[in-house]
Amino acid sequence: MSSARRNAFYAQSGGVTAVINATACGVIETARLHSDRIGTVFAGRNGILGALREDLIDTGAETDEAIARLRTTPGGAFGSCRYKLKSLDEADGEREYRRLIDVFRAHDIGYFDSQDTAHKVSLLGERLGYPVVCIGIPKTVDNDLAMTDTCPGFGSVAKYVGVSVREAALDVASMCDTSTKVFILEVMGRHAGWIAAAGGLAKRHRDDAPHLIVFPEVPFDEVDFLARTKRTVERVGYCVVVASEGARHADGRFLADAGGTDAFGHAQLGGVAPMLAQLVRGRLGYKFHWALADYLQRAARHIASATDVEQAYAVGRHAVELALAGRNAVMATIVRNSDEPYRWQLGDAPLERVANVERKMPKAFISRDGFSITKAARRYLEPLVAGEDYPPYVDGLPDYASLANHPVARRLERFP
Amino acid sequence: MSSARRNAFYAQSGGVTAVINATACGVIETARLHSDRIGTVFAGRNGILGALREDLIDTGAETDEAIARLRTTPGGAFGSCRYKLKSLDEADGEREYRRLIDVFRAHDIGYFDSQDTAHKVSLLGERLGYPVVCIGIPKTVDNDLAMTDTCPGFGSVAKYVGVSVREAALDVASMCDTSTKVFILEVMGRHAGWIAAAGGLAKRHRDDAPHLIVFPEVPFDEVDFLARTKRTVERVGYCVVVASEGARHADGRFLADAGGTDAFGHAQLGGVAPMLAQLVRGRLGYKFHWALADYLQRAARHIASATDVEQAYAVGRHAVELALAGRNAVMATIVRNSDEPYRWQLGDAPLERVANVERKMPKAFISRDGFSITKAARRYLEPLVAGEDYPPYVDGLPDYASLANHPVARRLERFP
Repeated sequence: MSSARRNAFYAQSGGVTAVINATACGVIETARLHSDRIGTVFAGRNGILGALREDLIDTGAETDEAIARLRTTPGGAFGSCRYKLKSLDEADGEREYRRLIDVFRAHDIGYFDSQDTAHKVSLLGERLGYPVVCIGIPKTVDNDLAMTDTCPGFGSVAKYVGVSVREAALDVASMCDTSTKVFILEVMGRHAGWIAAAGGLAKRHRDDAPHLIVFPEVPFDEVDFLARTKRTVERVGYCVVVASEGARHADGRFLADAGGTDAFGHAQLGGVAPMLAQLVRGRLGYKFHWALADYLQRAARHIASATDVEQAYAVGRHAVELALAGRNAVMATIVRNSDEPYRWQLGDAPLERVANVERKMPKAFISRDGFSITKAARRYLEPLVAGEDYPPYVDGLPDYASLANHPVARRLERFP
Repeated sequence: MSSARRNAFYAQSGGVTAVINATACGVIETARLHSDRIGTVFAGRNGILGALREDLIDTGAETDEAIARLRTTPGGAFGSCRYKLKSLDEADGEREYRRLIDVFRAHDIGYFDSQDTAHKVSLLGERLGYPVVCIGIPKTVDNDLAMTDTCPGFGSVAKYVGVSVREAALDVASMCDTSTKVFILEVMGRHAGWIAAAGGLAKRHRDDAPHLIVFPEVPFDEVDFLARTKRTVERVGYCVVVASEGARHADGRFLADAGGTDAFGHAQLGGVAPMLAQLVRGRLGYKFHWALADYLQRAARHIASATDVEQAYAVGRHAVELALAGRNAVMATIVRNSDEPYRWQLGDAPLERVANVERKMPKAFISRDGFSITKAARRYLEPLVAGEDYPPYVDGLPDYASLANHPVARRLERFP
């Protein structure tokens, strides 16, 4: 624990969410409360790339009001990136880390808050002789980080999907006698069915939508899927399906692969919904509609979960408090104390226990037939979507903040 | 004008909206205020088909509270249909109309409120010797009815699309340095670009999204579209496109045709967004994402426009008042008195001047380059999305009403 006043670096890396700016708000507002210990909070323009490029944003140039408005603004206010730092063990990898340290040193950065890269950076300090206090902050709509009960960002996507399923189902139910019989909503979740499971919250009674959820965890059984779709249409009049983009065949192939890969080598997915819709029409002859919410779901700040917003802010605040308390190489976490009434508190976990561990959805969250959620899943999910936290509106649309994002003067040569 | 107490028939036919139940609420609540003149309001189960099948719902069996909750519930509470009554001039057509009159007579129905079929039914009364007071009530997300300034349902879709574009654009902007460069949102609007135009409301400053709107009114020029997409990515860093499902080539072909036709012989569309996305990747090499909101947009009661909800209720109320005032064969309308401040009042127009007329979007609403909206469009659209009217929530999701929908005992033989 250093008692000297040093600057902080905050990076929004990886996929953004509806509430990651609420975390930024928590970080910056808390740092401002401790201006005796923390100088300027620099944000990386486009996340960790901003550090590599020495492209820093001076958040100190923003008014308190502008920072406060981050709480209700989706997306990443300083930019984010899909960029994977090389492994420290790669020869070329160490170059990147040396550069990070050079930038930190040049700008007297002693605190590093991030989501995706905190663990790697934390390994640097000792090795390269420049101690940096590294705190991880959870955020991902995928809800797949270990050691935390949930990841800020997830609760709001979960709410968006639950709301959308309930609403679209009312539309389909109205028209099913003479129009669409099968409606399919494709949702995010490459490797785990957390988001698809949230669609299950829309169901209150037996015949409510969603009637089928297609999880990545359950190998897709075409015959069973079609038989259930048919039985549902015959009994209820229509069938609403929530399909995860990560749905797979038994051999591991994704149901729909848009081709191409991202910077992490992940396949770029898309199109499970149209694929299933064509299957339904081809085999069962039903009229279909489908929707693919894509970024709309993870940017939907207008229908954010109040719980999620509160937790997003809290982990940002807690990250700064952990740093000031002399903790290092830990991630701020959310600890659940009870489901009902929902009680939670902040905690922390070693970054090394978080890194490279993907938290799967518990098997007990998926019903035995593989197409719906269990009561245990509902107990877990319901508190995360609870409460509404509406942004301000001007002229009928949300009045989201946009920051000036003043650049900090460079002190180093360009990094090639 | 009859002073005897007679029953009313209300049908929710055609595509439903986020606020058509607010209209039902206006009809039923107003009828209940006039129980000396109007007996029971019967609703057709699945719209006009409910009349043909003598499948009537007794709305009198619902409590005032249940009816009040319709105001905040999307979809069609009594069911709707895609069913086109035959022309009166077809030999077989008259059979359907005779059946309607038989059902009306059997249930002492003297008032008929509907959206899609009011004009045809109004032609019956004199010809078949059973006078029915017929009042049309505008509703369609397509906003294409003549004689009314807007159609309830449209304002809420417009708001949903404006909100979604603004939110998704913040996500794309955050990530564009290393990830998605082009994002395409496909919206409804088979023949007119009203809904696509609403996406334009998200733009406040020159480089804000949407950067391009693909209207059905403007023949798609692939070369121009690609050139503008490229210039936008190069200048802004990313490009957000709103594409109407009704976008067409110069020869009139839809850009994307999902194959098949509906009961009206319209092509079932879908897939403009993936088609444009593939074009962008193939010709420009940019990473893309796309979303297709489909029913989510027209069912999105959670983000309904307060103006739209108020107008939807008002036209329902006004339809009953027109009937009681002895008017017949008219549609309740919305008349705009001024844009800013926005002032409107209720009016009416002869059904014969509404039927079979499709209101196109004014040419002056599309910019000269064909890819954005003008100030005139903004003046028209902005008041329609103004205000929020949030539904109640329980357990984190909207608590939408579901009615008992008690059937009325049949008095006639089945209609074959």
